[in-house]
Amino acid sequence: MGDASAVALLEEAAGAAERARELQDAAAALLSAAAADEQRFRGRALALDSDLRRLRSSRLAAAAAAAVDPEIADRIDEELDRARCLISDGDVASILPSKAHGRFLKMFLGPVNVRAARKEVQLKVKQEYNSYRDRTAFLFLLFPSTLLFLRSWMWDRCIPALPVQLYQAWLLYLYTSLALRENILRVNGSDIRPWWIYHHYCAMMMALVSLTWEIKGQPDCADKQRGVQLFLAWAIMQGFAMLLQNRYQRQRLYTRIALGKAKRMDVVWGETAGVEGQLWLLYPILFILQGFEAYVGMLLLRTALADVIPEWQVLVCGILLVVMAAGNFANTVQTVMAKSRVKAKMKRSKSKQDFDQSTSPTASSSNNSRSSKQS
Amino acid sequence: MGDASAVALLEEAAGAAERARELQDAAAALLSAAAADEQRFRGRALALDSDLRRLRSSRLAAAAAAAVDPEIADRIDEELDRARCLISDGDVASILPSKAHGRFLKMFLGPVNVRAARKEVQLKVKQEYNSYRDRTAFLFLLFPSTLLFLRSWMWDRCIPALPVQLYQAWLLYLYTSLALRENILRVNGSDIRPWWIYHHYCAMMMALVSLTWEIKGQPDCADKQRGVQLFLAWAIMQGFAMLLQNRYQRQRLYTRIALGKAKRMDVVWGETAGVEGQLWLLYPILFILQGFEAYVGMLLLRTALADVIPEWQVLVCGILLVVMAAGNFANTVQTVMAKSRVKAKMKRSKSKQDFDQSTSPTASSSNNSRSSKQS
Repeated sequence: MGDASAVALLEEAAGAAERARELQDAAAALLSAAAADEQRFRGRALALDSDLRRLRSSRLAAAAAAAVDPEIADRIDEELDRARCLISDGDVASILPSKAHGRFLKMFLGPVNVRAARKEVQLKVKQEYNSYRDRTAFLFLLFPSTLLFLRSWMWDRCIPALPVQLYQAWLLYLYTSLALRENILRVNGSDIRPWWIYHHYCAMMMALVSLTWEIKGQPDCADKQRGVQLFLAWAIMQGFAMLLQNRYQRQRLYTRIALGKAKRMDVVWGETAGVEGQLWLLYPILFILQGFEAYVGMLLLRTALADVIPEWQVLVCGILLVVMAAGNFANTVQTVMAKSRVKAKMKRSKSKQDFDQSTSPTASSSNNSRSSKQS
Repeated sequence: MGDASAVALLEEAAGAAERARELQDAAAALLSAAAADEQRFRGRALALDSDLRRLRSSRLAAAAAAAVDPEIADRIDEELDRARCLISDGDVASILPSKAHGRFLKMFLGPVNVRAARKEVQLKVKQEYNSYRDRTAFLFLLFPSTLLFLRSWMWDRCIPALPVQLYQAWLLYLYTSLALRENILRVNGSDIRPWWIYHHYCAMMMALVSLTWEIKGQPDCADKQRGVQLFLAWAIMQGFAMLLQNRYQRQRLYTRIALGKAKRMDVVWGETAGVEGQLWLLYPILFILQGFEAYVGMLLLRTALADVIPEWQVLVCGILLVVMAAGNFANTVQTVMAKSRVKAKMKRSKSKQDFDQSTSPTASSSNNSRSSKQS
C-alpha cells in the first residue's frame, strides 16, 4: 500500500467523520422536534383528562342527588367510559407521562424507564408475562411433587437439605422476577391490584427466610420436617390453582378483548379470574387454598410459641403465611363482590335494552351499542 | 338538577368522547410519522456504521503490512475515533437499534426495553449508578466491621446466626441489583467489561449459597467460624478498595469527559480506575485484595477436602472465590497493559506534536486537536 492510497484512506475517514457530524445534527433536530410534538400533544391529553374527571364527578354528584334520569345517566357513563378507554389504552397512553415507577423497581433497577413506547411492545410484555406464568405454574407443580415423591420413595421420609434449598432458591428467584415483572406491567398501564404485588413481596421474604432455615433436623426428622412437608403440599395445590387460573384468565381476557371492554394490559393475577360458569370450580379451590395457607401458618406459629428454643424463622414464616392468607381472602372476596355488582348492572342494562327494542321496532339489532345510543 | 342539565351533561360527555377519538387519531399519526422518520434515519446511520468498520479494517490491514506513514495512520485513527464517538455516544445512538438485552435481564424482567431514549436519561442512570456504588461501598465497609467489632466486644468470639444472615441477604440483594444495573448500563451503551458483570453473578451465587450455610457451629465456635471471619475481613478490604476506586473512577471520568475522549456511559467497575499518579495506591491494594480472596478460597477448599463430612457450601464457596480472584487478577492485568499501551501512544503523539509545533511556528497552540489536524 503506497502513500497515495493511505492519503485516500485518510480522505475517506475524514468524509466519514463529516457524515457522522451531519447525522448527529440531524438526530438532534429529529429528537427535539419529536419532543416538541409530544409536549403539545401532552397538553391536549392532560386537558381532556381533567375534563373527564370533572364530568365524572358531576355525574356522581347528580346520581347521589337522585336527580337524573337513569337512562341518561347510563348514556353519560357510556360516553365517559369510551373516552377514558381511548385515552388510557390507545396510542395516547404511550405519549402521556408514565405512572411513577415505585420504590421496588428503583431499588433493583435504578431510575431507568421501563415503559414501552409502543403499544405492540406493551402487549408483547404482557403476552410474555402470561406464558411465563404458564411455565411457572408447571414447575410449581413439578418441584414439590417430585420432592414429596422422592421423600417416600428413596429418602426414607427425611428430605435432604440440598434439594429443598434449591427449590427455595428457585422460589426466591421466581417471586423476585414476578414482582419485578408485575411492577413493570403496572408502569405500562396494567390495572393489577396492588395486593398481588405485595403478596409477592411477602413470598420473596418467606423464600429468603426459609433459605436460612435449618432443614436436616436429625434426630426426629419426620417430626421436624412436618412444616416443610405441609409447605410442599400447599405448593402443589398452589401450582394446580395457578394452572386453572391461567387458563381462565386467558379465556376471560380474550373474551373481554373481543368485546372491547378490557384494556389488554389488565393483569388479574389469580383470583379475579374466570369465564362465567367455570367459576364454580375456581373459587372453591382458591378459598380452600387460602384456608390451607392460614392453617400451615397457624401450625408454624404454634410450633414457634410452644418450642423451648424457637427458631425465629418458624415465627416469621408463620406470620407471613397468615398475613398472605388473610390478604388473599380479603382480595378474592372484594373481587367476587365487584364482579357481582358488574353482573347486576349488566343485567339491568340488558333488560332495559330488551325493553327499548320491544318498544321501538325500528332500532337496528345488528349494532347494539349504536342502537342503544340512538334510541 | 333537572333533566335539562342532565342532557347538557350528556352532551358534554359526548363531546369529550369525540375529542378523545380525535386525540387518539392524532396520537396514532404522530407515532407512525415518528417511526417512519426513525426508520429512514436508522438506514443512514447503519450505512455509516458499516463504512466505519470497513475503514477501520483497511487501516489495520495497512498497519499490519507496515505500508503506511505513522503520521497519516494517526490522523486516520483520529478521524475514525471522532466519527465512532459521534455515532455511538450522541443522539444518533439513542435512535439506533439497541444492543441485545442478554439472558440475565430477560430472566428477571421479561422482554421489556430498558434503553433510555434520551441522552439525559442515560446520563441520569449512569449518575445514579455511581452514587449507588458510593452508598454501597460505605455499607460494604460498615456491615462487616460492625460484625467483627461486636464479635470481640459482646459476642464472646462467636457471632450469632441472624446478623450474619441479614448481612448475607443484603449481599444477595446488592449483587443482584448491581448485576441488573450493569446490564442496563450495557444496553444503554456503556463499555463495561463483561467480566465485571460475570463477577457479580458469581458473587450472587456465593451470597445465595452462604445463606444456606449453617453459621452457629457450636461447639468449637471459634474454629468453625474461621471461614466467616476471614470472609468478613476480606469484605472490609473490599469496601475500602471500592471507596478508593469510586473516587478515582469519578475523577478519571470527569477528566476524560472534559477532554472529550470518553463516552460518558463508560463504566469501569473497579480495576481500570485511577487518575495518573494515584494508581500507585490503588493497584497494589487491588492485587493484595485478589491475593487475599484467593487465599480465603484456598482455605475453604482445604477445609472442604480435609473434613470428614464436608458441607457442600464450603466447597462451592471456595471454588467461587478462587475463580473470582483469578478472573479479577487477569482483568486487572489486561487493564494495566491496555493503559500502558495508550500511555505509550499518547507519549509518541505528544512528542510528535511538540516536533510539529517547533517546526511550524504558525500553528495555533490554543486548539490542539485542530492544529494537529491542519498541520
